[in-house]
Amino acid sequence: MPEPAAQMGRPLPVLLIRTLVPIALTLILHPLIPVLGLTEYFPFPPQPTFPALQANIGFALLALVGALYLVPKVSPAFIDKGLKGRDLLKPGGRTSGPWVPECLGLPCATLYLLLMMLFIPFPFSHIFQVAGNNGVGREKFPLRELTFYLTSLLSLLTATLLGFIDDLFDIRWRHKLPIPLIAAVPTLLVYYATGGWTWVVLPESVGKLLRSLGLPGWTGAPVVNLRFLYYVYLALLPTFTTNSINILAGINGVETIQPLIIAMSITLNDLLYLPIWPEWFLEFLGIENAAGGRILTWAVGQVVTRHLMSLYFMIPLIGVCAGFLWHNWYTARAFPGDTLCYFTGMAFSAVAIQGHFAKTMLLFFLPQIFNFLLSCPQLFRLVPCPRHRLPHFNEATGLLEPSKAVFERAPPLPGRIFLEVFQALGLTRLERAPPPADSKSEEVASSKSWPQEGDIVSATNLTLLNYLLVRLGPMHEPTLCLLVGAVQVAGSAVAFAIRYGVGSLVYGGDRR
Amino acid sequence: MPEPAAQMGRPLPVLLIRTLVPIALTLILHPLIPVLGLTEYFPFPPQPTFPALQANIGFALLALVGALYLVPKVSPAFIDKGLKGRDLLKPGGRTSGPWVPECLGLPCATLYLLLMMLFIPFPFSHIFQVAGNNGVGREKFPLRELTFYLTSLLSLLTATLLGFIDDLFDIRWRHKLPIPLIAAVPTLLVYYATGGWTWVVLPESVGKLLRSLGLPGWTGAPVVNLRFLYYVYLALLPTFTTNSINILAGINGVETIQPLIIAMSITLNDLLYLPIWPEWFLEFLGIENAAGGRILTWAVGQVVTRHLMSLYFMIPLIGVCAGFLWHNWYTARAFPGDTLCYFTGMAFSAVAIQGHFAKTMLLFFLPQIFNFLLSCPQLFRLVPCPRHRLPHFNEATGLLEPSKAVFERAPPLPGRIFLEVFQALGLTRLERAPPPADSKSEEVASSKSWPQEGDIVSATNLTLLNYLLVRLGPMHEPTLCLLVGAVQVAGSAVAFAIRYGVGSLVYGGDRR
Repeated sequence: MPEPAAQMGRPLPVLLIRTLVPIALTLILHPLIPVLGLTEYFPFPPQPTFPALQANIGFALLALVGALYLVPKVSPAFIDKGLKGRDLLKPGGRTSGPWVPECLGLPCATLYLLLMMLFIPFPFSHIFQVAGNNGVGREKFPLRELTFYLTSLLSLLTATLLGFIDDLFDIRWRHKLPIPLIAAVPTLLVYYATGGWTWVVLPESVGKLLRSLGLPGWTGAPVVNLRFLYYVYLALLPTFTTNSINILAGINGVETIQPLIIAMSITLNDLLYLPIWPEWFLEFLGIENAAGGRILTWAVGQVVTRHLMSLYFMIPLIGVCAGFLWHNWYTARAFPGDTLCYFTGMAFSAVAIQGHFAKTMLLFFLPQIFNFLLSCPQLFRLVPCPRHRLPHFNEATGLLEPSKAVFERAPPLPGRIFLEVFQALGLTRLERAPPPADSKSEEVASSKSWPQEGDIVSATNLTLLNYLLVRLGPMHEPTLCLLVGAVQVAGSAVAFAIRYGVGSLVYGGDRR
Repeated sequence: MPEPAAQMGRPLPVLLIRTLVPIALTLILHPLIPVLGLTEYFPFPPQPTFPALQANIGFALLALVGALYLVPKVSPAFIDKGLKGRDLLKPGGRTSGPWVPECLGLPCATLYLLLMMLFIPFPFSHIFQVAGNNGVGREKFPLRELTFYLTSLLSLLTATLLGFIDDLFDIRWRHKLPIPLIAAVPTLLVYYATGGWTWVVLPESVGKLLRSLGLPGWTGAPVVNLRFLYYVYLALLPTFTTNSINILAGINGVETIQPLIIAMSITLNDLLYLPIWPEWFLEFLGIENAAGGRILTWAVGQVVTRHLMSLYFMIPLIGVCAGFLWHNWYTARAFPGDTLCYFTGMAFSAVAIQGHFAKTMLLFFLPQIFNFLLSCPQLFRLVPCPRHRLPHFNEATGLLEPSKAVFERAPPLPGRIFLEVFQALGLTRLERAPPPADSKSEEVASSKSWPQEGDIVSATNLTLLNYLLVRLGPMHEPTLCLLVGAVQVAGSAVAFAIRYGVGSLVYGGDRR
């Protein structure tokens, strides 16, 4: 029987594409009307307050359409070159499951980067100043911001190149761990070379505590200069943002829906800092306007610039992730490869480092932090870790079930303690050795042998995916992926609550 | 008979590597001694005038050693992935010639880019200002220069990524032609966004001519603003520097020796602009020092900065090309792939665009220009063009001979004219149809048939390599490669003569 041919992408949403392309071009060209001196011919609609931001949304739509179109276009070439993998969670699985082109994060990342390069003149040239209108949103970005923009692109491009090399040559685990760190080198060194800020604002509560202790030499200001340590912190950030997405993987769509929702959350957070909100809306939200004003008083000067910069990166990222998700969604016609994780993870780190909101960024990674902490006993080999930890596909029911790590010998004591605690918390499901069936086997088993009655012989793998399956029972693959998306959205809601509700405990007065 | 296994790189020059690494580290660490406050422990040797430049030479040595070491290390992975080609000019040729790993330009380019990223703090941070010494060569580069540096890295990285995608997926000719242009996008857009200079200094002779004509509105200054056309010119530059090296290819080492010598020539040219030359040397060269001073008066301010910037890119490029040449030299153990051409070509374009010496750069491409012009009749299909135009390997003698394009029908008239002219100039060797052997065939051949007596039936392929073989007779492959190197050196000598001898005819008074 011939193998079923790999399918090249999902059929394209032609009507959507035909609608989006003219909208995208309009958004991009509209701010150029006064630049080209055509205002008298096209007086409507009036020019936007943020012309570069409007164009950026146009570029995001192009990224969406481009990703939709490119992925099936280049899939055959990827399969030809052996960049393909079997979908393990489909009938046939490891041996005869369908071939899916792998590493399609590469064309998406390349497309994104090319669009971001073409976007350079919009915020960084003088084009929106021709009318003498230098108000908020129209000023030419200073050279310093251009430097940051270029550095971020450089880090993203490095992450893409190294990620692709990793996908192609199957680099060993210990060799690929430093890849996000290497990709962050331009960001960190330019941060340093331009006189990087290494002060951290302490929470007011800590500041009060230190004041009350009356430490010698303590000036009372709740800030502390971490100096070299700050760079260690910044260097660890991309390693975390990249790998934490990478280990929450294994089912169709889940590697794409995570960065999609994180990018949306960051976009929402950035938008809060733009002076675009009408007063009635802010008052409706219960945010005072005068002396006690919170959002409005932030929305000035460099803070606006920083968050505009972050938006310029995040909005097209939403576009490209959404376009790729079309092909990556169940049943996946394309796999992202590590390239997409490296690329999106680096994007999050770069905007967080240069926008000075690394702590807020981490809040949007709550599901990933949970998944990482849950995984630790297996990652550090306290509990046996099989090669794949993705859920188990039950061919009879067509549902996903939690996969198990079956132990060949007793795990070390700390591992057993973790497992017992995790089971008590409902995070895993353990199987214990049954009482000996009859006296014969009891004779064979010496008092030192393993397993004895009640010993743990298997545990469901310690990942967020298996945890959801343990708690909620077997379910279909797309349901589980949607559920992860819902968890991510819930995580972001909690993040906003922490940041703007109880933020003063963690963030101190300076809410930038 | 089993195929001979591909050989992984040439044996390493271990003694050279062991000598170079400590030298490189010393060059890099020595300028850091006062930065780390260790001057009292290491008072000797005195600190250099150009600390960042000294460190750059150290990085270049690391690039050399790294390329030597990396190429054989990663070759097996490249062969595994099918990135390999047969060496056509060895016994066995197309069918059983030795396999050689292909596309080894990728690790070289990646290494170079990572070193260039690590180099960022040397020229662009405040580290060399700690001693309060802000003299020539020690000032912190302005943010503007950092922007240019990052942009060049971005273009180089894009060229590397797209070049590798090209090598891997065998992109079609018409799809890969715009690759250098895409890679140049960041350079061009940042040039524009930072208020790019689009004035061109006309030769004094042209200025005089225009003045004598008394053109209306002509202010008399021998400069002209090309505006949009200047960007067209800058956009075509990378297409030329990349592809002109790419089409002068086919024998072991020739794709590496060209950028090596071009980078050396640019380095020499840049060094002329640094204030490092003792007066006696300049007087010895016959260059006055006072009012008529030529070199010394240039060596100030922004001109020094620009050429320092160019040196920072070119010196490590020499290192990485020299390291790769070790493995690429006859008999080649590694092929560069298009990646190396894209990468080096983009490096030349980037420094030329941002250093404002695009015309001087073109002078160093004289052999490539000659090869391109010679190739035009075949590139534009006026003369039949076989798939490979590399020289022919004579297995009996072991020598290379000119390869021929054999015609299946009469080439069009313009092609025939080109061939006759080229033969008259000694650039090609033609074969003509012999007189009909006997009356029988004369009967068969109607008066309209081809070839008739004297018609051209074949011509040696129109490349510099075949031209050298036509003029100087068959030779060994490494001899031909050395000869191309010699031609390149001679071309650079001519370039220096034009630039500094008769330069005023072409360059006008402003010799920057």
